[in-house]
Amino acid sequence: MSSASPLEKERKQASFDVRSMTYLLEGGEEKCKRREKVRKYVEEDPVFRNDDRYTLDRYSLYKRGLEKSKHLVNRVQEIGLGNREDLEVFWDAVDMNLPTNLHYAMFVPTIMGQASVEQQSEWLPLALPFKIYGTYAQTELGHGTNVAGIETTATYDKSTKEFVINSPTVTSTKWWPGGLGKTSTHCVLMARLIIDDKDYGVHAFYVQLRSLEDHMPLPGITLGDIGPKMGYEAVDNGYLRFDHVRIPLFNMLAKYAQVSEDGVYSKPPHDKLSYGTMVFVRAHLIATASVTLSRAITIAIRYSAVRKQGYVIGAEKKGEEMTVLDFGLQQARLFPMLAESYALHFTGAFMKKFYVTVTSGIQQGNFDQLAEMHATAAGLKAYSTWKVSNGIEECRKSCGGHGYLLVSGLVHLFADYVPACTYEGDNYVLIQQTVKYLFKICESIQRQEKVTVESVSYLVEQEDPSLHTSSKQKVNWCDPNVQLKLLKLRAKRLVWEIFDEYSALVQSGLEPSQAWNRMQPLYPRAVNAHCVLYIASCFIDGVKSTNESSPSLVPVLARLSNFYILHQIEQSMVDFVEVGMISREQQLQIRQQKQTLMSEIRPDAVPLVDAFNHSDHLLNSALGRYDGRVYEALLESTKNEPLNHTPVPRGYEEFIRPMVHSKL
Amino acid sequence: MSSASPLEKERKQASFDVRSMTYLLEGGEEKCKRREKVRKYVEEDPVFRNDDRYTLDRYSLYKRGLEKSKHLVNRVQEIGLGNREDLEVFWDAVDMNLPTNLHYAMFVPTIMGQASVEQQSEWLPLALPFKIYGTYAQTELGHGTNVAGIETTATYDKSTKEFVINSPTVTSTKWWPGGLGKTSTHCVLMARLIIDDKDYGVHAFYVQLRSLEDHMPLPGITLGDIGPKMGYEAVDNGYLRFDHVRIPLFNMLAKYAQVSEDGVYSKPPHDKLSYGTMVFVRAHLIATASVTLSRAITIAIRYSAVRKQGYVIGAEKKGEEMTVLDFGLQQARLFPMLAESYALHFTGAFMKKFYVTVTSGIQQGNFDQLAEMHATAAGLKAYSTWKVSNGIEECRKSCGGHGYLLVSGLVHLFADYVPACTYEGDNYVLIQQTVKYLFKICESIQRQEKVTVESVSYLVEQEDPSLHTSSKQKVNWCDPNVQLKLLKLRAKRLVWEIFDEYSALVQSGLEPSQAWNRMQPLYPRAVNAHCVLYIASCFIDGVKSTNESSPSLVPVLARLSNFYILHQIEQSMVDFVEVGMISREQQLQIRQQKQTLMSEIRPDAVPLVDAFNHSDHLLNSALGRYDGRVYEALLESTKNEPLNHTPVPRGYEEFIRPMVHSKL
Ligand SMILES: Cc1cc2nc3c(=O)[nH]c(=O)nc-3n(C[C@H](O)[C@H](O)[C@H](O)COP(=O)(O)OP(=O)(O)OC[C@H]3O[C@@H](n4cnc5c(N)ncnc54)[C@H](O)[C@@H]3O)c2cc1C
Ligand SMILES: Cc1cc2nc3c(=O)[nH]c(=O)nc-3n(C[C@H](O)[C@H](O)[C@H](O)COP(=O)(O)OP(=O)(O)OC[C@H]3O[C@@H](n4cnc5c(N)ncnc54)[C@H](O)[C@@H]3O)c2cc1C
Repeated sequence: MSSASPLEKERKQASFDVRSMTYLLEGGEEKCKRREKVRKYVEEDPVFRNDDRYTLDRYSLYKRGLEKSKHLVNRVQEIGLGNREDLEVFWDAVDMNLPTNLHYAMFVPTIMGQASVEQQSEWLPLALPFKIYGTYAQTELGHGTNVAGIETTATYDKSTKEFVINSPTVTSTKWWPGGLGKTSTHCVLMARLIIDDKDYGVHAFYVQLRSLEDHMPLPGITLGDIGPKMGYEAVDNGYLRFDHVRIPLFNMLAKYAQVSEDGVYSKPPHDKLSYGTMVFVRAHLIATASVTLSRAITIAIRYSAVRKQGYVIGAEKKGEEMTVLDFGLQQARLFPMLAESYALHFTGAFMKKFYVTVTSGIQQGNFDQLAEMHATAAGLKAYSTWKVSNGIEECRKSCGGHGYLLVSGLVHLFADYVPACTYEGDNYVLIQQTVKYLFKICESIQRQEKVTVESVSYLVEQEDPSLHTSSKQKVNWCDPNVQLKLLKLRAKRLVWEIFDEYSALVQSGLEPSQAWNRMQPLYPRAVNAHCVLYIASCFIDGVKSTNESSPSLVPVLARLSNFYILHQIEQSMVDFVEVGMISREQQLQIRQQKQTLMSEIRPDAVPLVDAFNHSDHLLNSALGRYDGRVYEALLESTKNEPLNHTPVPRGYEEFIRPMVHSKL
Repeated sequence: MSSASPLEKERKQASFDVRSMTYLLEGGEEKCKRREKVRKYVEEDPVFRNDDRYTLDRYSLYKRGLEKSKHLVNRVQEIGLGNREDLEVFWDAVDMNLPTNLHYAMFVPTIMGQASVEQQSEWLPLALPFKIYGTYAQTELGHGTNVAGIETTATYDKSTKEFVINSPTVTSTKWWPGGLGKTSTHCVLMARLIIDDKDYGVHAFYVQLRSLEDHMPLPGITLGDIGPKMGYEAVDNGYLRFDHVRIPLFNMLAKYAQVSEDGVYSKPPHDKLSYGTMVFVRAHLIATASVTLSRAITIAIRYSAVRKQGYVIGAEKKGEEMTVLDFGLQQARLFPMLAESYALHFTGAFMKKFYVTVTSGIQQGNFDQLAEMHATAAGLKAYSTWKVSNGIEECRKSCGGHGYLLVSGLVHLFADYVPACTYEGDNYVLIQQTVKYLFKICESIQRQEKVTVESVSYLVEQEDPSLHTSSKQKVNWCDPNVQLKLLKLRAKRLVWEIFDEYSALVQSGLEPSQAWNRMQPLYPRAVNAHCVLYIASCFIDGVKSTNESSPSLVPVLARLSNFYILHQIEQSMVDFVEVGMISREQQLQIRQQKQTLMSEIRPDAVPLVDAFNHSDHLLNSALGRYDGRVYEALLESTKNEPLNHTPVPRGYEEFIRPMVHSKL
């Protein structure tokens, strides 16, 4: 069976140099090697082993999470990992959501971003070396999306120069913050600022939750874990209630908004300033999306190249069974996700660069691009988190029954990833922000204003009709110009259509909000068109610039880019057909072109996933192993199952034996 | 807040009598009441409580599974539940996949179906009162879909009149059978029958696995649990290896195939005989699909009617927050699944009746309908398991962050249901069986044979062009005749297209199997068209017959039927647009019609899910409670979380305190 791994044969077929591709994906040879070195620290460290992840109960996983958290801090110091990038690589390699994640990810950054210099100098010396553990407490039982609706109050008491923190309702209970339940000693708390009965809206406060002596909750504070979830087993997402708890005036984060001792409020200078972090986080989410999908597809493609099962109908029992990756359906299911992983890689890389540009723009007082960045990041965050979570699940299904086992690695990958559709902005809420921005551009175009932002310039471009079906000339579907033209024409039409329809509803006398609500179901389609155009542009540009750095990689990347784009077009064929942009004959041409691309991609499939450079440690998958020894790994994995630690199970004497030995 | 439940207000809006609808769904008043009585036995029984399901570790859940298994047997005897239907209701109400499920579901039925009378009289007196526990061991590490490829051998030894059972390879390890790991004492084993070096293919054997004395595995047998999975935590799906284990000749299941003492093999009379059970199981799966989806949509709609969050863009901060069920997008996401639940209900009911007809046909030697039933059940099984698993996940996402908690009830519902896409035939394999059948019909039509099977008669019906876009007349989209005509025309075209293309490929010299493989990616679309037509017909017929029994329910059911069908048409709009069946103007009409239906369905949404009659026990969901007190239930649920049983968590002394108190 798998003694001589079928993967070796696959690897020999590569049309390109895998290592060069890895360098490209990891940002160059030097960077790649540095990363590999950092990852090794984790992978060779027994404390960071993760083969126990699938069999430990939740309490033990939480404890392992604490253990890894502490060890991480110690090891990073010992090794002397200085720069942020190394730290991130180290962190990613640890590959488990830890109870202390929010300390790094939100608590410290919020203090750095929103606390005054004075506050920072007081709190950071505690927070940075973990003399306190912090989290970010925003969401409540009753309010997640609508942050402005948060109910926890911080009422200023002039007489004592304190805020009184209170949870006035059941729904005001803080609910979800990571690490809040059992780990954190402190939090940044989002609460309504009340001064003299006047409500100034939601502000951030620094609040101690537990005693540093014995870790007991402080008086007036009730808190705990919110209970088991799909993933994140090691994280103690928590709840938190306050019964008139007093904190000093000093504890309101005061970089932007302030309250004076006698209760005078001064508001922040610019309300867009807090956008920055949010946009950064979303830009980051897009890069993560690519990495996550690439893990799933690595497992699915390797397993599909090892798995042999049955025959094509019409060839029953002729010779060796089919490698399932050779089934037309299996390719049609998996290759789009392979291409998508690469597409999102180039998009994520572009977004990171774009973020830097925008930030420097802001420093010069230019907020134009911020709005674009914000709208695009919102749409792309929704697009990519949907694609990737659906993609992981499809990868899992493509492994047949074995995908259903936790040791497939795909179950946790999904469970840990899918909340990204909900947090950092619920996707259905986010796409409306993209629409809102696009509508603004439409309005400014109607006012004859010039569109200066490139990514939405398609909304005003003149249509070139040469692609219409009336013209019988053969189209080169792999020409990026043709592709972009199609995608632009589509996006332009769909955006203008919803804009015009919305405007007409408003004109006809409907309340704008009612018109908006009625139009909502049409937004996903238009935002999808906008996002696909954006991603396709990034992919095409990415391939182009590879032509300079690593020309030998261009053919295989171009194939993926073409496949990605043609697949997107096929998926939304109605958008093109209903206005006669693509004729029936051309539909067939596109299908045939895709078919050709599929057979060209097939021999590179395993090398293309190898290039992602995911270690066996990180994949943590019996099915996705580099050596392809899946069956041995599955059998071996059963040793970790607690049920197997005794030949006769607990419960036998009580429940099985009495039946077997009954006199009935 | 939830003090006066918003659900009460919703319930007052009902346009129909909920109880009457429940009677319709449960098969009449009498049956409904009987079922409710049976369910009460379970729901009021502390042993069957399930509020511990989300927090127990796997080992404890397995033990609880054994406890419930035993209690179930005892209670059923005490109560004196005689008929199969009551038993099923009881079983369903227990609502956890038990370690002993396969004993009832496969072991006993296989013995009844495939063992000789002599064998039955020996084994059933042990199996029926649980003096032995059995499972059905078919799938191996290396073979699931391709049953014919199974590697376990049963070699007949004439000298001792025994079979020698052996696992010759790693991949021949049995892998997956429910209850095999720790619970079962026996199994029906599928193994290759070998006599005098000749391989007679896969046959069924009765094999003892564990001692009835002390439950230890018998000599030569290695077995255990295959480890944790997505769902089914209480079930010990197992692995099993044989090292030359001997069983008597008597133990080969001998109703159809036999081996004589001197090793002469006689084969079964008709190879379609084993089809029956498979088809029955799949027909049953379609009814289950409806019930499962209806649970998910009950939770999602109730929660969406309770949850208030934010405002529509354009109405920010005006008055009370929106009930999320009033967002256009939320309705567009949820109502299709509400309609789908009803659609699948009528389809499932029809399939069960159809099964009875077919079975009596077979008794008269008529296998025609068996082929149709088999093909349709295969396609519908794939269609419905996909729809329902995707639907549950969409319901979960529609609950925002709280959907991610296990106490939402939606996480386990998905995990326990989604393997239905893979077992009882992998969906991608099944749809090919449907295509194969449809191709046969196409061939017989080409040979000018008459099509006698109604469900595929659309393949030969004459096209009436009056719906074409050229005709400007207004179409009544809620006319079932119009709807069926559209769906038939579509299915006809799509099936003939793939058939013609396949035939052309073969004609052009391609191997049939190669042609088939190349065509594979096109099959899901055609099978979808076939299935949607089938379901739409069942739904329309179902509404029609309701007109006789409960006319007052017709308006609301007709709305759901129309909504289901128009939604399906919209989802596959390209199928209609690309051949000019539906014009752009008509597309808009359909959209507006759907919009109207959505607003008509809205006030009935909660009553329509109430009608499914799922108890709080069964939903086991903090979000889907009948009383709508979701926030109180969420808070309450945290008490079950083991992490909350001590104020300071395990691991504090070891991992948190040293950091907080370090001298650094
Ligand atoms: C694993 C996980 C970790 C988390 N960690 C943290 C954390 O560390 N700190 C923290 O503060 N929070 C955290 N959260 C909470 C998270 O931020 C919220 O769950 C998220 O913001 C969604 O809000 P919600 O739950 O209120 O959903 P809701 O807004 O209540 O959504 C319910 C439904 O309504 C729909 N909906 C809402 N508004 C609209 C609209 N305007 N138009 C159309 N439809 C709408 C949504 O699409 C959804 O279907 C976490 C959540 C999860 C799942
Ligand atoms: C929860 C659970 C419980 C189970 N319980 C039992 C049990 O009690 N007893 C038992 O015997 N078994 C059981 N099974 C096993 C189950 O029957 C198999 O997993 C199932 O038959 C699928 O087979 P496979 O795993 O070999 O998938 P494979 O056939 O290996 O599928 C792998 C991939 O190849 C694709 N593929 C396969 N053939 C084709 C084709 N011809 N054309 C195109 N694509 C193809 C599939 O779509 C899939 O994507 C269980 C499985 C699960 C998940």
